[in-house]
Amino acid sequence: MATINTNYNKLPASYLFSEIARRTKAFLKKNPGVEVMKLSIGNTTEALTPVVIKGLSQGVKKLANVKTYTGYGDEQGNIQLRTELASFYKKRGIDLEVQEIFISDGAKPDCANIPSIFGQDGVVAISDPAYPVYVDSSIIAGRKIVYMECTQENGFIPVPPKVKVDLIFLCSPNNPTGAVMTKEQLHEFVDYARKFKAVIIYDATYAEYIADKRFPKSIYEIDGAKKCAIEINSFSKWAGFTGVRLGWAVVPMDLIIEGTERGKLNSLWNRRQTTMFNGASNIAQEGGLAVLSPKGQKQCQAVIAYYMNNARIVKTGLSKIGLKVYGGENAPYLWVVCPKGLDSWGFFDKLLKETHVVSTPGCGFGAMGEGYLRLSSFGHRENIKKAVKSIQENLKL
Amino acid sequence: MATINTNYNKLPASYLFSEIARRTKAFLKKNPGVEVMKLSIGNTTEALTPVVIKGLSQGVKKLANVKTYTGYGDEQGNIQLRTELASFYKKRGIDLEVQEIFISDGAKPDCANIPSIFGQDGVVAISDPAYPVYVDSSIIAGRKIVYMECTQENGFIPVPPKVKVDLIFLCSPNNPTGAVMTKEQLHEFVDYARKFKAVIIYDATYAEYIADKRFPKSIYEIDGAKKCAIEINSFSKWAGFTGVRLGWAVVPMDLIIEGTERGKLNSLWNRRQTTMFNGASNIAQEGGLAVLSPKGQKQCQAVIAYYMNNARIVKTGLSKIGLKVYGGENAPYLWVVCPKGLDSWGFFDKLLKETHVVSTPGCGFGAMGEGYLRLSSFGHRENIKKAVKSIQENLKL
Repeated sequence: MATINTNYNKLPASYLFSEIARRTKAFLKKNPGVEVMKLSIGNTTEALTPVVIKGLSQGVKKLANVKTYTGYGDEQGNIQLRTELASFYKKRGIDLEVQEIFISDGAKPDCANIPSIFGQDGVVAISDPAYPVYVDSSIIAGRKIVYMECTQENGFIPVPPKVKVDLIFLCSPNNPTGAVMTKEQLHEFVDYARKFKAVIIYDATYAEYIADKRFPKSIYEIDGAKKCAIEINSFSKWAGFTGVRLGWAVVPMDLIIEGTERGKLNSLWNRRQTTMFNGASNIAQEGGLAVLSPKGQKQCQAVIAYYMNNARIVKTGLSKIGLKVYGGENAPYLWVVCPKGLDSWGFFDKLLKETHVVSTPGCGFGAMGEGYLRLSSFGHRENIKKAVKSIQENLKL
Repeated sequence: MATINTNYNKLPASYLFSEIARRTKAFLKKNPGVEVMKLSIGNTTEALTPVVIKGLSQGVKKLANVKTYTGYGDEQGNIQLRTELASFYKKRGIDLEVQEIFISDGAKPDCANIPSIFGQDGVVAISDPAYPVYVDSSIIAGRKIVYMECTQENGFIPVPPKVKVDLIFLCSPNNPTGAVMTKEQLHEFVDYARKFKAVIIYDATYAEYIADKRFPKSIYEIDGAKKCAIEINSFSKWAGFTGVRLGWAVVPMDLIIEGTERGKLNSLWNRRQTTMFNGASNIAQEGGLAVLSPKGQKQCQAVIAYYMNNARIVKTGLSKIGLKVYGGENAPYLWVVCPKGLDSWGFFDKLLKETHVVSTPGCGFGAMGEGYLRLSSFGHRENIKKAVKSIQENLKL
């Protein structure tokens, strides 16, 4: 008699985005003809760059010819792409072997699946607020969670837990708060992990949004991190691959936990991927190679600069009318303190009603997100400007 | 202190393909200048068809223009693609709601991940021999396995286990044996599943290779199957998408297990996918739409006919010299009885040495595969013909 995985019953209802849609729809029904403006998009909006389109097109073309057609590739990814990623790290002073880099279909599956190579009875430390995948996948796996509170007081930067944990999720630049960890702050976690033999799962999805050299783009910029950290990254927010699906994970050979030899964790992830995954799309991987070319990186940086200009427009515009806005620097997300003691949904409703702007209630990212809204810099410039103008002109503070 | 998932220690060493490569390399070193011919390829080899290339190219082009660019799609897949798949089933007399169809990045991840929505203490029935993913992913999840022996006596068709199990993997047309289940044989499993409240996970990856109408292409052709079966399928072997990555799973609303209401299992898989997966590549999905177009289906069927002609050439050619060959009809794989009491590796070596043909030892698919070789009809016609000719002329029987 089959039964269900009862851990699913422990998941919080996932109603954030459906509730946003429901309230927006209800508002539009009451106010026909009104046009809402979205500062709630956690998704890239600009077209792929010419070099990347060329790479993807070449990927398709190869499949049209029997001489260049390829079927299954290596589950770990195209060796050329892995080699280019190793060079990409090398330029930042980080030495990685090609076999330490695993290509994936994006950061989300990696975040959800990497913990599966670890013992299921482990305790996981997760920031609050956080990208929901860390929490939900941990609950599905039956893991105990310890939350690291991120507040105005600590600048939304988590500090290592007081108790001993086994796995630690970190995300910097952060979704949803836009907070970015310094080397020193990250070093504290590396020290903690090495002391208590924990493993850090470092989500560096937004690393390319960092312009300020004070902030590390990779956890491996921290001494000793290779011994205690897995890094996850993605082409999604960097190169607009949210729909194309391409990411990677670094599982260092030097990552060793009590009772395992060098390379064991790398071999476990290798076994997991070769057994349960069949590689990222070969077309997407050709696109990834184009992103990593000098021209590709330049073009993608221009798109990032575009989004970061959006962020500046939102931050400056909202600060001007007295709203307290965190993030939006070296990170595409802005974290706005709800004014007048409003809770997240209260400010969401007020913003929608008075200014016709759709936002994302911070409480959807965890209990500590209550009292905040997440705004996003993803969007077309003219829409971003219109939304900010509407807030400036119509929000009753 | 982090620990590892110790289930990984229980996995059998995965040395089949590396051992094939090692022995082939050693042979070539000893016999420089010799050209080996591969009948071991479990991978599509022919170029994608023009309609499909056009679809994929359009997918890329859309991303080049801000007006048609798309980022994250629905995790469950493009609604148009799901709708077309529902029509595809409808033409076979099977009614499916769109929300019962989940687009994935291929059959392998679905086979490995779908069991995760079920209780982990369940017992899984798996054919022996079988596609290794069923066994390996079950071991990683810590599940107990019951093997259903597939032998010459039962025509390599499993029969329902004598003991009660919770999940049952079935694959028809079968990899590696090429055996295809009749409606009656499949009905026995549906009856078993309904009686003991088990769930069948039906891998229909090779369904499009079925030309003979006696054999069902979908488990839902069997009365009552919607109440007890999940079906997994793929564009890989049908349309040459092994590297492009696109598949789907059907989780019927009517699939109910003890203690759950209608739609519960569908909602669990929905939750799993929305939490831990981020959708298949949007480019691949555009390609999938092209495959499902009338012209696309016709062109893909022509490629299947090409591979099935290869299968006929291998089967006829090898039977002519007295080898006993199963499969290769309505299925791309052939299952050859090792002659003269040779074991799988013994015949592998003999074939390589005497005929320069590389095969796949059946023992790599399970204990009951010992004494067989798997041959594949994937390959270019001239290579297939050369390999068969070499076996006919050089194999010392």
